[in-house]
Amino acid sequence: MSQQDPKRIEKKYREVLDGSDVTVARLIRDLEDEKAEAVEVLKRLHPHTGRAHVVGITGNPGAGKSTVVDALIAQYRKQEKTVGVVAIDPTSPFSGGAILGDRIRMQKHAVDPGVFIRSMATRGHLGGLCRAAVDAVAVLDAMGRDVILVETVGVGQGEVDVITSAHTIVVVVVPGLGDEIQAIKSGILEIADILAINKADRSGVERTEADLNLMLDLSGKDDRPRISIVKTVATKSKGIDELADAIKEHSSLLRKTNEGFRRTLRRAEVRLVELLKERMLKRASAELKEFGGLEAFAKRIAEKETDPYSAVEGIIERLTGQPDKGKI
Amino acid sequence: MSQQDPKRIEKKYREVLDGSDVTVARLIRDLEDEKAEAVEVLKRLHPHTGRAHVVGITGNPGAGKSTVVDALIAQYRKQEKTVGVVAIDPTSPFSGGAILGDRIRMQKHAVDPGVFIRSMATRGHLGGLCRAAVDAVAVLDAMGRDVILVETVGVGQGEVDVITSAHTIVVVVVPGLGDEIQAIKSGILEIADILAINKADRSGVERTEADLNLMLDLSGKDDRPRISIVKTVATKSKGIDELADAIKEHSSLLRKTNEGFRRTLRRAEVRLVELLKERMLKRASAELKEFGGLEAFAKRIAEKETDPYSAVEGIIERLTGQPDKGKI
Repeated sequence: MSQQDPKRIEKKYREVLDGSDVTVARLIRDLEDEKAEAVEVLKRLHPHTGRAHVVGITGNPGAGKSTVVDALIAQYRKQEKTVGVVAIDPTSPFSGGAILGDRIRMQKHAVDPGVFIRSMATRGHLGGLCRAAVDAVAVLDAMGRDVILVETVGVGQGEVDVITSAHTIVVVVVPGLGDEIQAIKSGILEIADILAINKADRSGVERTEADLNLMLDLSGKDDRPRISIVKTVATKSKGIDELADAIKEHSSLLRKTNEGFRRTLRRAEVRLVELLKERMLKRASAELKEFGGLEAFAKRIAEKETDPYSAVEGIIERLTGQPDKGKI
Repeated sequence: MSQQDPKRIEKKYREVLDGSDVTVARLIRDLEDEKAEAVEVLKRLHPHTGRAHVVGITGNPGAGKSTVVDALIAQYRKQEKTVGVVAIDPTSPFSGGAILGDRIRMQKHAVDPGVFIRSMATRGHLGGLCRAAVDAVAVLDAMGRDVILVETVGVGQGEVDVITSAHTIVVVVVPGLGDEIQAIKSGILEIADILAINKADRSGVERTEADLNLMLDLSGKDDRPRISIVKTVATKSKGIDELADAIKEHSSLLRKTNEGFRRTLRRAEVRLVELLKERMLKRASAELKEFGGLEAFAKRIAEKETDPYSAVEGIIERLTGQPDKGKI
């Protein structure tokens, strides 16, 4: 365990509240690695969270999410709002690094102190991406950003958890090619508060809009407000003001109903569960060091000396001092 | 904990080894719910696993994965091989159910006892999809299927874990539209053993193939065999025999090198870690029942009575009887 210095913790805490980009960047990186001191800083920051409006932006690869995020940043800056961005970059399980091509475009905002962008890459299967992403949102919230954009590709479980913990969820689709059908199939339509039909200068946009409207009619639920549809051409910043308006409108709606607190609660639950899984796994891993760690157990399973269930039952019994009875 | 009957466990175990579809279907469903008796059956089945060739099939939504799977099933049946399919269906976090439109096409195989198809839906964030999917693969393996196809959309963490635990990984891409670029961006290219360019009757297929070849040249790694590229039109079963050949070739390659065992080890590790996370979370959840469960803790976090880290440290201390020091 690394040395903790109360004075340093206090200093970092102050610097985050004062909006220091450098401290925030380091803190988020240290939280990715779950460094003990960073955790102490985050604990102290917790009471300062809850002010930012968190907007999740998702959609299939190629829909133009990053361009939409980029255009939204410019829009919010025009309105003199400060912006934080947490972009979850898919990555190779081999190289372990994020592919940040898209982010280069965003670098025009890099010199603007009102914009803070952080890319996070998928990590090993000991996980923690989801937890690290929601932690980063909390830090940007505490540093006083007005709007936090969370961008993620795909419909994986962890990413769905991150996105559904946002206040407002924007799903980006493109016209034609059955993309609207794919959106439904991948279940992202149902989590949307706002649908942005991007690349709306392409042919087929009316058809896509009509299809989406029909689907919304069919799936209409009385207990949820109607999903708004906005057409954008993000590369030309077209329709971005309408998108920002739709986000603002949804934000007001949240304040008027109980849904706002429900989403805050959901984010708290995601953070709690993800952190709990990560910590317990670390604890188990440490406990098993003398036996060669989790890897040694995996080898015993692969070689059929034991099976996964018996191995896990043994590990949990060791960890808690009580037999693990499986389904409790 | 449900009642366990050793005779019933023995009976189910025998029935799986005898290839009973009905017993296998029930067992997989019970494993999704982690029923104690099903777990005991799976433990006994473990020594009978490791014979099937597990093929992971992934790619962006709309690439035609399900059609490729469908055509591959027909191809393997022609070769008189038995087939198991585990299809991970993305789903809405609201409705909780899978959208199985694609599966309807596969139903022509439903009357063929040589084909067993199981669709699994994303579950709540207490998770378990990845664990349930690898368990299902183990059951189909034990029942004696020659080939097991695991199909999944997207690039989420859990799905990457499932896919990379396969022996042979097929990534399905489509020509044009920058899909090849998207494949790289989403990191799936690097996990591929075989690239299937589907819908290869579309214009732009030569360009896509050239681009992919260039990328493979650039990213060439000495320690991994060259990724094969196969062109398919799955709807017309074109190129599917070549795809099956490429899979077979990769399978022989695995047998000749240490890579085969490395992949088996990887699957064991994924199963171990996923199960460990799930069990420990259940244990924590049960332990906290008297305080209102995890939900009550989430509420306290949302209301800022505590922060996620302090809450988790308290929970783990309670669970293990030792203080949780975070980073160990």
